[in-house]
Amino acid sequence: MTGATEGISEIITAALLVIGDEILSGRTKDKNIGYTAEYLTALGIDLKEVRVVPDEQPEIVAALNALRARYTYVFTTGGIGPTHDDITAEAVAKAFGVPFDYNPQAVEILRTRLAQTGGVMNEARMRMTRMPVGAELVLNKISAAPGFRIENVIVMAGIPQVMQAMLDYVAPQLKTGAKMLSETVQANCREGDIGTELGEIAKANPQVIIGSYPFIDERGANAHVVMRSRDREKLADVKVAVQAMLDRVHAGLLARQKA
Amino acid sequence: MTGATEGISEIITAALLVIGDEILSGRTKDKNIGYTAEYLTALGIDLKEVRVVPDEQPEIVAALNALRARYTYVFTTGGIGPTHDDITAEAVAKAFGVPFDYNPQAVEILRTRLAQTGGVMNEARMRMTRMPVGAELVLNKISAAPGFRIENVIVMAGIPQVMQAMLDYVAPQLKTGAKMLSETVQANCREGDIGTELGEIAKANPQVIIGSYPFIDERGANAHVVMRSRDREKLADVKVAVQAMLDRVHAGLLARQKA
Repeated sequence: MTGATEGISEIITAALLVIGDEILSGRTKDKNIGYTAEYLTALGIDLKEVRVVPDEQPEIVAALNALRARYTYVFTTGGIGPTHDDITAEAVAKAFGVPFDYNPQAVEILRTRLAQTGGVMNEARMRMTRMPVGAELVLNKISAAPGFRIENVIVMAGIPQVMQAMLDYVAPQLKTGAKMLSETVQANCREGDIGTELGEIAKANPQVIIGSYPFIDERGANAHVVMRSRDREKLADVKVAVQAMLDRVHAGLLARQKA
Repeated sequence: MTGATEGISEIITAALLVIGDEILSGRTKDKNIGYTAEYLTALGIDLKEVRVVPDEQPEIVAALNALRARYTYVFTTGGIGPTHDDITAEAVAKAFGVPFDYNPQAVEILRTRLAQTGGVMNEARMRMTRMPVGAELVLNKISAAPGFRIENVIVMAGIPQVMQAMLDYVAPQLKTGAKMLSETVQANCREGDIGTELGEIAKANPQVIIGSYPFIDERGANAHVVMRSRDREKLADVKVAVQAMLDRVHAGLLARQKA
């Protein structure tokens, strides 16, 4: 059995669970999905799914349990602050079926920070130190409220600066796979002009994932062809094939214009 | 039974299913979640969940079936173009268990547009006219490729300009509920200073959803308190209570600084 996987990197997957009414109402525009997607791709972790759920315990618990069973890692953002609507930590404890209590190390960090900044310790701030028992802290240099990790779930803040600092803290602890390599070519024609031939290239090269992403600019409809693979040679071959195909299509369009 | 709901608007809910590898790889930063969230809120439709899934049929089918059973409407974005990776329409047909075929009206629209623009009809472009049988077109003025609606599922393009035009087209067909009203007050102190009292106000006013959204600017940690309700009077009462609470907190912090 081990022989079959020798030399093949394990594929490491992840999901992101964004928690917050403010994202669903449109009041706050999420910045964490795009950042995390790019960050994990660069690490060699495949982000396979994102969900956004409201600040409601049953929703958080259900989504978390569905995702943590399925992916190597689940990252969450939002809902770990000091106010009544910050219910992520308790929901995570519930999802794992473990007790929820003050984390002594988190309390110490908070006390130290408050002594430095002149803030007062109170019930609201103490909320931020409550975590599933057994969780390890995910520190950050910006806020005194740590995130935490329990098994394959990493719980982070919603504020982008803090979330990004937490990702930096936790990244060295994560298993990573072979990086997905990527090449992009701009079509300089309409997607509909290349779809058939591009599909044939995709079919002939199953180890390269080919995507076509249309966009509209002042010159009209255009597309980016993105090729992704963990195999550098196959990726280079496909890029050559796509460029040759685009040259043929451009020549055909030009001939048609002249006719 | 009808008596019990008299005078109470029905709550209309929605989910958004974003389909596309390019969002999960971080290559493309989604702009449709925030736009749709704000748009639906303004219409009086509560966006309750968002999912982002890859261009893989089983993933799209599973997510769509989970969401369409649960919410009044499901909106999808992405995957309805002319290339091999555009598999949304076929996945929707599969989810509904209906045949998948060329839609004569969509073919006609495409032919007319190509005659105007000088594009050629080909297999790739014809892909864009294939839909679940029984679907109604969701037109838009920007592209010749319509989205479609089948039962409570509305399938839209991924390009933001086109998606937005499709939302405008479909909006007048949608049931809407009483609009969620919203008030925002800036705390001008740290979240931890108001958490306890804000929680008490929230507990005493279950008809108003109170959220606290921290942010960091050049003056340090701050927060917005957002109050949401369908009841205008209750919302106004809570805003007064929150402002009075903030005044007390500010006075307390000032007294502490002077001491």
